[in-house]
Formats: sequence, C-alpha cells, structure tokens
Amino acid sequence: TSDNKVNDLFQDVHVMIFIGFGFLMTFLKRYGFSSVGINLLLAAFGLQWGLLLQNIWHMHDGKIRVSIEKMINADFSTATVLISFGAVLGKTSPVQLLIMTLLEITIFCINEHLVVEVLNVSDVGASMTIHAFGAYFGLAVAGVLYRPGLRNGHENEVSVYHSDLFAMIGTVYLWMFWPSFNSAIAEPGDPQLRAVINTYFSLAACALAAYATSSLVEKKGKLDMVHIQNATLAGGVAVGTCADMDIQPFGAMAIGITAGVISTVGFKFLTPILASKLGIQDTCGVHNLHGMPGILGGLAGILAAALGKKAGVSPGYQACGLASSLGFALVGGLITGLIMKIPFWGQPPDQNCFDDSIFWEVRQKKIDMLMLFCNARTCSQLFLMLRKMSCS
Amino acid sequence: TSDNKVNDLFQDVHVMIFIGFGFLMTFLKRYGFSSVGINLLLAAFGLQWGLLLQNIWHMHDGKIRVSIEKMINADFSTATVLISFGAVLGKTSPVQLLIMTLLEITIFCINEHLVVEVLNVSDVGASMTIHAFGAYFGLAVAGVLYRPGLRNGHENEVSVYHSDLFAMIGTVYLWMFWPSFNSAIAEPGDPQLRAVINTYFSLAACALAAYATSSLVEKKGKLDMVHIQNATLAGGVAVGTCADMDIQPFGAMAIGITAGVISTVGFKFLTPILASKLGIQDTCGVHNLHGMPGILGGLAGILAAALGKKAGVSPGYQACGLASSLGFALVGGLITGLIMKIPFWGQPPDQNCFDDSIFWEVRQKKIDMLMLFCNARTCSQLFLMLRKMSCS
Amino acid sequence: TSDNKVNDLFQDVHVMIFIGFGFLMTFLKRYGFSSVGINLLLAAFGLQWGLLLQNIWHMHDGKIRVSIEKMINADFSTATVLISFGAVLGKTSPVQLLIMTLLEITIFCINEHLVVEVLNVSDVGASMTIHAFGAYFGLAVAGVLYRPGLRNGHENEVSVYHSDLFAMIGTVYLWMFWPSFNSAIAEPGDPQLRAVINTYFSLAACALAAYATSSLVEKKGKLDMVHIQNATLAGGVAVGTCADMDIQPFGAMAIGITAGVISTVGFKFLTPILASKLGIQDTCGVHNLHGMPGILGGLAGILAAALGKKAGVSPGYQACGLASSLGFALVGGLITGLIMKIPFWGQPPDQNCFDDSIFWEVRQKKIDMLMLFCNARTCSQLFLMLRKMSCS
Repeated sequence: TSDNKVNDLFQDVHVMIFIGFGFLMTFLKRYGFSSVGINLLLAAFGLQWGLLLQNIWHMHDGKIRVSIEKMINADFSTATVLISFGAVLGKTSPVQLLIMTLLEITIFCINEHLVVEVLNVSDVGASMTIHAFGAYFGLAVAGVLYRPGLRNGHENEVSVYHSDLFAMIGTVYLWMFWPSFNSAIAEPGDPQLRAVINTYFSLAACALAAYATSSLVEKKGKLDMVHIQNATLAGGVAVGTCADMDIQPFGAMAIGITAGVISTVGFKFLTPILASKLGIQDTCGVHNLHGMPGILGGLAGILAAALGKKAGVSPGYQACGLASSLGFALVGGLITGLIMKIPFWGQPPDQNCFDDSIFWEVRQKKIDMLMLFCNARTCSQLFLMLRKMSCS
Repeated sequence: TSDNKVNDLFQDVHVMIFIGFGFLMTFLKRYGFSSVGINLLLAAFGLQWGLLLQNIWHMHDGKIRVSIEKMINADFSTATVLISFGAVLGKTSPVQLLIMTLLEITIFCINEHLVVEVLNVSDVGASMTIHAFGAYFGLAVAGVLYRPGLRNGHENEVSVYHSDLFAMIGTVYLWMFWPSFNSAIAEPGDPQLRAVINTYFSLAACALAAYATSSLVEKKGKLDMVHIQNATLAGGVAVGTCADMDIQPFGAMAIGITAGVISTVGFKFLTPILASKLGIQDTCGVHNLHGMPGILGGLAGILAAALGKKAGVSPGYQACGLASSLGFALVGGLITGLIMKIPFWGQPPDQNCFDDSIFWEVRQKKIDMLMLFCNARTCSQLFLMLRKMSCS
Repeated sequence: TSDNKVNDLFQDVHVMIFIGFGFLMTFLKRYGFSSVGINLLLAAFGLQWGLLLQNIWHMHDGKIRVSIEKMINADFSTATVLISFGAVLGKTSPVQLLIMTLLEITIFCINEHLVVEVLNVSDVGASMTIHAFGAYFGLAVAGVLYRPGLRNGHENEVSVYHSDLFAMIGTVYLWMFWPSFNSAIAEPGDPQLRAVINTYFSLAACALAAYATSSLVEKKGKLDMVHIQNATLAGGVAVGTCADMDIQPFGAMAIGITAGVISTVGFKFLTPILASKLGIQDTCGVHNLHGMPGILGGLAGILAAALGKKAGVSPGYQACGLASSLGFALVGGLITGLIMKIPFWGQPPDQNCFDDSIFWEVRQKKIDMLMLFCNARTCSQLFLMLRKMSCS
C-alpha cells in the first residue's frame, strides 16, 4: 500500500517538475522552446546528478540502491535548479545552465543534509530548503549576470495571448498537484493526510487573495495574467514548512492569504525596484513566487514550532534552518554566478536575449516580420491608404 | 488501500475540474484568459464554500472533520457551477459569477441532500444532480440575462485555430478521467469497478457516434470541432446514474451512442433555435453536453431501476430525483439570474462580450488589429495593388 | 493493493495514448485538429476492437469478463495503430485510417499471441510487438501509398511556433509516463519496480544524448525541435524488452544513450533518404522514434537473454520474436496499404495533404491569407512603400 502511495506521489511530483515548471515559463512570446525544452534538459540531467550525490554516501557493496523515494528526492533537487532558471530565463545559454545545475544541486545537497539531517529541522514541503534556497540562489546569479543593456526592458520580454495560455497549463498543474509535493516525504498516515489538506486549504485561500489583490492594484480593477499565473501558487510554497504540523485549516488559510497578497504586491511593486535599484533582473519573478513566500513559510514554521504544533521541533533550530538555506543560497549563487560569467559558455548578447532562435532552429519568422512592421501607427496609415484607394 | 484509491480518484476529479472544464471553454478566440482563469477562481472559491455547506451540519466539537472524500464532494459541488458558467460564458463579470457560485452551490446542496439522502435516489455519476442540474440552472440564468443585441452573433464569439486546440486539451482530459468521476463515490469493490468499466464503454461508443453524426450533419461529410470537443463526452454524462448498476457493456454502449447522437444533433439544430426562439443564448452548448444527456441519464436510471439492475432502487424515486433536480435548477436559476441582473455587478456591455480585455490586462493587440483591417476583400485588393506596384 | 496499482498504471497509459500520442502529432501547422481528433477517434474505436479480439477466445458463458488489465491490453493494441498513423499523417482520410485500425489490430493480436503466448518471448515494454511492429507496419503502408507529387515537400508540411509547443505537451507526457507503460504488464513486485527504474534511467540518459546529438548535427550547435520532441523518447522504446530484466542502471543508460543518438541521426540523415530513395514518406519519423529503437530493444533483449539477465528467457526465442514482429508488420502493412489504396476511401489529393480543412470545418482563414501574400519579399516592399508614402 505504502508502495503504491509513494508511486502516485512520485508521478504527481514528476508532472509538476516537467509540465508544471516547464510550461509556467512559456509565457514569453519567443522563448517557449527554451522554457519547455531546456527545462526538460536540466531536469533530466539534474535528477541523475541529484540521485548520485544524495546516495553516493550510502552505498551497499559499491552499489546505490534505487527506490521510488530516492527518485522523489532527486526530482526535488532538480526543483531548486528550475526555480533559479526562472530568475535568469532568457539571458543564459544551455551550457551556463548545465554548469548551474551541477553546482546548485551540489550546494543544495550540502545545505539539505545540514538542515534536515544534522539540525533536525522540520521542512516537509521544503519552503526553506527548496523554494527560498532556489529563489535566492537564482537571484544571486541574476545579480552577478546583471545586464545594463536590458535596463529599459527588451522587446521580446513580453507575452502574447497564446503564450500566456500555455503558461496557464503550468500554473494549473502546479496548483492541482502541490498537495502531493508538500506531502510526498511526510510520514505516512495522519501527518501525510494533514499535509495534503493544509496545502489544499492554503492554495484555495491564496488563489482568492491573489485575484482580489491583482484586481486592487491594477487599473480599473482588471486582473493581470502574471499575477494569476504565479501568485495563486504562493500559498503552496508558504505552507510547505508547516504542512504536516497541526496548524488547522484556519492557520493554513491565513498563511495562504498572506502569501497571495505579498506575492501579488511583489510582482507589481518590488520586481521593478529590484531590477532598477539592485540590478537584479528576475525574469519570472521567482522572488515573489518562491523567495518571499519561502521565507514566510520558514517564519510560519518557527512560529508553529514555538506554539508546539509539532512534537520535537524547536523554533531555534527552525530559524537556523532558514538562515542556513538563505546563506548557502546567496553565497552559492554568487560563486556560481561568477563561474557562469566566464566568457566562453556562449552567453547570448543582449539583443538576442529572450529569443529561441539563438539556440533553436526556428522555422517560422513570417508572422513576426508582419507584426514588426505593422505597429499601431503604420497599420492605421495602411488602413486609411487602403480605404482611399478602394474608394477612388 | 481504500485510502490510496480515494486519493487517486480525488486527483483525477481535481484534474477534470481545473484542467478539463477550464480548457474546454478556451475555444473562443479572445476569451481564453477568462475561461481558464475565472474557472480557477470559481473552483477555488466554490470548493471552500461547498466544503463548509456540506459539513456544517455534521460538526464534532465545533469542528469540521476534513477528509479526502469530503474534498471530492466539494469538487463535485463546484462542477455544477462550472457547467452553468459554460452557458453564460463571455457575458458575465467575475463578480456576477461569484454570486452565482454562492447561490448555486447552496441550492445544489439542498437538492442533493433531498435526492440522495432523503429520497435515497441512486445517482452515482450525478447525471441528474450535477449535470442536468448545472445545465438547466445555467440555461435559466442565461434566459434571464438574455441580450437582444447579440441576436445576430458577435464577432468575438468564434474560435481560432489554436484556441480550438487548447479546448481539445480540456476535452481529452475530461474523456480520459470520466471513469474516475463516475466511480469516485461508488461503493468500493465490484460496484466501483463496474462504474469504471461502464463509463469507459459508454464513452468509447459515444465518441464513435459523435464522429459519425458530426460527419452526417455537416456539409461534404466534414467534422465540426465543436461537436468533437463536446459530444464525445456526452456518454460520460449519460451513463452517470446507471454507472454502478448491472447494465452490461451493451447497456452502457447503447446509452453512449444515444448520447453522442442527440448531443451532436443538439449542437447543430437545437442551440440556434434555443437562442432565436426562446432567448436562451447558450455559449458553450451546455444543453447539449450536460442538459439532454443528463436527462437521458436520469431516464436510463429509471428504466434500469424498473428492470431491477440495482438492488434497493425504485423507478418512482428515481423519477422524483430527476424532477427535483430539474425543478430546483430552473427555479434556482431564475432567482439567481434575477439577482445577477441587478445592474451594479459590472456586467459587460454587448460590444465587450467574449473579450478578455474588459477584465484582464491584455498586452498584445497588434495581431488583432491586423486581422481586423485585413478581411478577405481588402486583403485581396492589397495583394493586387502590391502586384501592380511591384511590376510597374 | 494490486488492484489500485493496476488502476494507476491504466490511467497513465490512457494519458499516453490520448494526450501523448495525440499532441505529439500536432506539430504540423495546419493539421492539429486531425492529429488530436483522429487520434481520439482511432483510439476509441481501436480499444473496443482490441478488447473484443483479445478476449473473444476466452469467453465465459458467452460473455467476456472485462477487467482493468484487459483495458490496459486494449490500450496497448491501439498504440500500434497510433504509431502507424504517424507514418501516414496528413496523407490519408479518416475512413482509410479506420480500415487500417481494423486490420492492424487484428494482425497485432495474431503476432502478439504467437510471440508472447506460443514462443514465450519476454517483451514487457513491447519494444518488438508494439513499437517495431507499429513502425514497420506504418512504413509499409506509407510505401504503398507513396505520392510522387510530394517528392519536393509540401508547403503545409512544416511547423509553426505554437504548433511545436503543442507537440511538446505530447512529448513531455510520454516522457513522464513511459515508466508506467513499460511496467504496466510486468509481474508485480521487484520486476515491476525494476521496469519503472530501468525505464527512468534509460529516458534520462536518452534525453541528454538527444540534446547533445541534435546540437552536434545542426548548424552552429543549435537544437532542432523535431529531435527534442521525438528522440528524447527513444530510450523508453529501446529499453522496453529488457525493462524487467536485471540489466542494472548502467545497462539501461547504455541502451538509452544509443537510442537517443541513432534516433536523432535518423531524423537528420535517414528520413530524407527513405523518402527520396525508397519512396517511404514518413511524416512523423516513426522509423526514428519507434522503428530503429524498437529493433535496438529487441537486440538488447537477445543480448540480455544470452547473458542470463532474466530466468527462463532464451536468446533464440527472443530473436524469433523480433523476426516475427518485423515479418508480420511488413507483410501486414503491405496488404493493408494495398486495401487502403482502393480509390473510394476518400484519400485526399496531393494539394490538400497536411490540411485540416479537407476533413474539418475550419473557420479561420484570414491569418493564413495574410501570411500567404506577405512573404519576405513582398513584405519588405510593402514596408518600403509604406515608408515612402508616409514620408511624402
């Protein structure tokens, strides 16, 4: 029975990694091939590397014993890389990203071993060790790779109608399967069931908060696709640390609502400031989806530990776990960023950023040429001209 | 074991609610954000409201005990809203729809309690209590919100090539996971297995019937995407009531074929009549996918009960269950429609119907402007003009 | 427990058949409706026909006992048809394809009975009996239906940006769930777990090999979407026969890497030669994804049997299984192709190939007209003209 359960959870986490993360990043109009394709490459590479690193210390007769649980943990280790990928999306080459995968998973394994095994910190849904870690690692890399040439944006760093719909495939899969992510390594039985239900409540409350906040901060009460694609998921991130604790639906929903609000507000107000003041260009806004909600999750865990919501968990050690994750992420990200900056990894020049065609054979160009020449002004001129011609 | 099983079924139903219903409605060319996005909003809101309503009567020490079974039932309650959403798609504001969610789930819970608990009606796949109920509720609302200005259609009430493909994601997921929907609350063991297999047969037969009928009623034997997206699923709706009864594959396939035929014929001939004669503008054709097949399911249940296909089920009570579901739907829908008609819920004006940009920030407009000015006639003129110019 | 497990595997295989195969073939710019829609039609028809054929010999009191295992086997039998569909995609009518389904599943059942039941060949993931069989059957049909008029390609036989992204939905689902495909009919317990893990390793290694090879054979080290969509999956095909054998991760990865390399090289160099020299126009390149990797899987099985990696399996019989599958496929495909060539099944003329609008109502034509007239040259002329006009 437990074997089946684990198998299901593995399948759900697998879908989140490959479909969820992959399609969530397809929102850019000319970067869908890379989003799904490089996501597949990094995940396929990362899970082998993660499986090796996580188990090389526990060999039996010179062999690693592979199990579904270990495959789930390998999938988890790739999640950190895919989060960081979001921060540097469109501005890095596949080779740079493979190097990042190699280094980030290594540092993740050290930090996770320290936090979970040595310090005995409780982080079942990995708000700290995966989400906050992956986000701040990626932001540190993005800071090192700062491109002054993109200060005023890039014409390709926008979505089109259908690319936003593709991204919603990723969002909805992540939203649906997040309860599996947060419960996958929970203790079977009540704690696991509690992790499922807390995550479900947090996500449901977070989704409503994200819609409400998006409508409040936008002109005329409109909704913004970027907020819906991302901030609706922040509740899953933020409830991660507490998911298996006895926080009750009220606690889960309070965490979810807070996460939905700060995530949406972050997209609207903080991301532009990070880019202009701190020189951190965060393409997917991972700071809002994984960074701040990850810290919120860590803080909620400290509070829940202080309130005795889980036996054997101490607020002090929880705080150490959060500090360690952030420290390893920032230092590791800085070092990794410096290595990635070495000029022979094929980093794309500014004008080719956010464009698949530098790394992929892209056959169709026509429609873009059309849209290029036919901006609003010329288009209406053409229209008038045509009207005149067809009347005369 | 049963716990795992229930968990799987929950996951499948969850995918149907969020991906299935959400993407099925993305077929309109300019309404994809709302289809997926508002679907997510209504479902996230509805499942909390449904969970509360369904369980507030059975509290223990002032607390609701949450279980996976209750989460399945909450998902089911949102399904009625998403069906009704299909009838009014493109013509209502998010606020109107949230009000509809609040009222419809309340009325659904009353009817379901009456039909299933009090009258002991057998409706395992909910042909009557979810599908027929949701459809006629939505049609009643659509009737109250009738817009004479859309009598001759709307330029945005059409699909484009890729929007039809997005909708097929919804169709295929609903088709694949419908056996889980119809068996989710069946008695474990043989009845549950029977519900899976009967639904599978009904859907397979229905799909063939829908293709054949679509080809027969269209010019030159072509297939129509609208039929394939919807009528292939009618077999899942119609076999719902009988799914756990001993109707044999032959019975299931007969139900599936009938559903596929009447659903396709409904799309072709009945929907235009409903709009022009009765003033019911049914955007997604929920009458054909959920309404008529739901009634067919109820009638098949009466017949199966009369033939003794399930112990302890009486044809009379089954008929009462159908009548009650239709009655609550129509009366509830009329009242809800009147409340939704109150003019300060932000209902969009006629010219902004079926257009995301009234409720969403839509960045890309260029391509539409192009397509707007370049209709077939001006386009060919432009072409001729160009040829002349480039020759001279 | 075993019941749940089987149910999960059925659901996963179902997703591969309907979403995986369906969307994988949507890469053509004007053939998405047919790819997903006809895939659904053939699969819904095929699973009924397969279920009947596979069980008509084992009736109890004149009735077939349906179980989830039998539904998995029926899904498997349709997989052969969907593979062959890929070879003739865009060049056949729905009626032709229904005839192919009828004949191919019949021949598949005979071959499978012979290979698995009579010869006791081990082929748990069906590299030989499904993949190689389906591919060479389809190639034989494509050879018989050779169209000299398409020797120089067809303007619609290309992808556009978003159609390639739709195809990636298919790729990623196939990639994720392939472990379920290869383990679905394995003996429960260790062999089944081994099949999952071997497939996982083979796919992960194959994906890296496909990316590396694609970058090596393309100009400027770019990646080609066609390779990524297909060759990343070849490892799942090739490890099929050996999946439940004791080949160790090293063996699985060696098979995966070989498959990824030969598949990519096949797309780049072999497919054009097959079309020009042998008159076999293989639209989806099934020879590279299912044909060669299927044979590789058969050969790996012979080798593994010779090395004693599974008890009771003989290399000689394994070789007979491969030969039988190829023989039945080629002869069966030739005969089926000749029957499909009879001129009254509505085969589309050359100019209407790869175009949905011959079998589907396609409403939107505008954008194509635009793109048609506005090719690169006229477009720039128009641009210059406009500039002049707006300046003067």
